[in-house]
Amino acid sequence: MPHLSKGLIQVYTGAGKGKTTTAIGQAIRAAGQGLRVCIFQFLKSEPTGEQKILDQLEGIKIVQSDYRCLHPKNEIQIKRLKDASRRLLDKACNSMEEYDIIILDEINVALHLSLLETQDVLKLFNNKPGNLELILTGRDCPKEILEVADLVTEMKRIKHYYDKGIEAREGIEY
Amino acid sequence: MPHLSKGLIQVYTGAGKGKTTTAIGQAIRAAGQGLRVCIFQFLKSEPTGEQKILDQLEGIKIVQSDYRCLHPKNEIQIKRLKDASRRLLDKACNSMEEYDIIILDEINVALHLSLLETQDVLKLFNNKPGNLELILTGRDCPKEILEVADLVTEMKRIKHYYDKGIEAREGIEY
Repeated sequence: MPHLSKGLIQVYTGAGKGKTTTAIGQAIRAAGQGLRVCIFQFLKSEPTGEQKILDQLEGIKIVQSDYRCLHPKNEIQIKRLKDASRRLLDKACNSMEEYDIIILDEINVALHLSLLETQDVLKLFNNKPGNLELILTGRDCPKEILEVADLVTEMKRIKHYYDKGIEAREGIEY
Repeated sequence: MPHLSKGLIQVYTGAGKGKTTTAIGQAIRAAGQGLRVCIFQFLKSEPTGEQKILDQLEGIKIVQSDYRCLHPKNEIQIKRLKDASRRLLDKACNSMEEYDIIILDEINVALHLSLLETQDVLKLFNNKPGNLELILTGRDCPKEILEVADLVTEMKRIKHYYDKGIEAREGIEY
C-alpha cells in the first residue's frame, strides 16, 4: 500500500471560489495514486455532484456532520450544531491511523462560528501521525492555524459572477 | 441530458497551490450532476494520479497536448510546442458543441510563454455556445482575459512547503 513518507498540513482559505473544489481534486489525485482519503464535511446541506462520484470510488470515504443547519435560529440549534461538529472532529481524531489524507472540509468556518475550539484542532495537529496529510478548507481560517500550517493558499476573490446576481448552479457550485 | 442554462468563463490563476486541483474537482462535481466535461491539458508531463481516475469516469474526457516538453532548449522545440499548443486549441474550438464544460488546463502559462496568442483565446470566447462553461487555469493569466472573465480567483501563495525545500509528492502534486 503506497503512503506518504511525510504528511503536512495544508490550508485553503479566502473568499474566492475553489476551496472545497480543490480538496475534491486533491482527493481524486491521491486516490489515483493509491492513497486512502477521508473527507469530513463540517457544514453541508444537500447531496452535491461530487458526492455522487466520490462515494463510488475506492479509497475515498466521505463522513458528514450528523446535524445539518446552515442558519441556526436559536440557542438549541447552535448547541446541536456545536455538539455535531465536536462529534465529527472526534471521529476525525480517531481515524488518523486509517488514512493517508484527511480533509476537514469547511472546518475553518466552523471555527470562525465558534462551533469548534481552535485549540482542539491544534491538539489534533499535535497528535497527527507523521505520514498523515491534513487539508483544511473554508474562509476565515484562524491565524493560530495559519501560523502552524505548512501550506496556505488564499483563494482571493478578484471577480465573482455572484456579484452580477447569478445564483449557484447545479454541476458548478454543487 | 442535463445542461447549463448559461455558461460562463472562469479563471484560476496566481502562484498558490490549487489551480489544476480546483479544475479536477470541478470536473468531478459536474460529472456527478450528469454534465459532459472535457479537459484540454496544455502543459503536462507524466501521467498524474487524477488521470488514472478521470479516464475511467463516464462524462469526463482528457485530451493532452501531443508534444511534451517542459523546458524547451532550442527554437525547434519551441516551434514544436507552439504547433502542438495551437493544435490543441483548435481541437477545443471544434469540440465546443459536444460538452457542457471545457477546461483549458495551464492555458494561461501557454499564453504567458507566447505558445499561443491571447487574441485566439478571445476569439474562442466569442464563438463559445451560450450554455458552455469555460474554465482556464495557470499562473500569469493575461489581463485581457481577466477583463472578460466572469469569475477570477487568484490562488495566492501565502505559504508553501516548496519554500522549505520539500519536493513534489506523488498523490499530492501529481
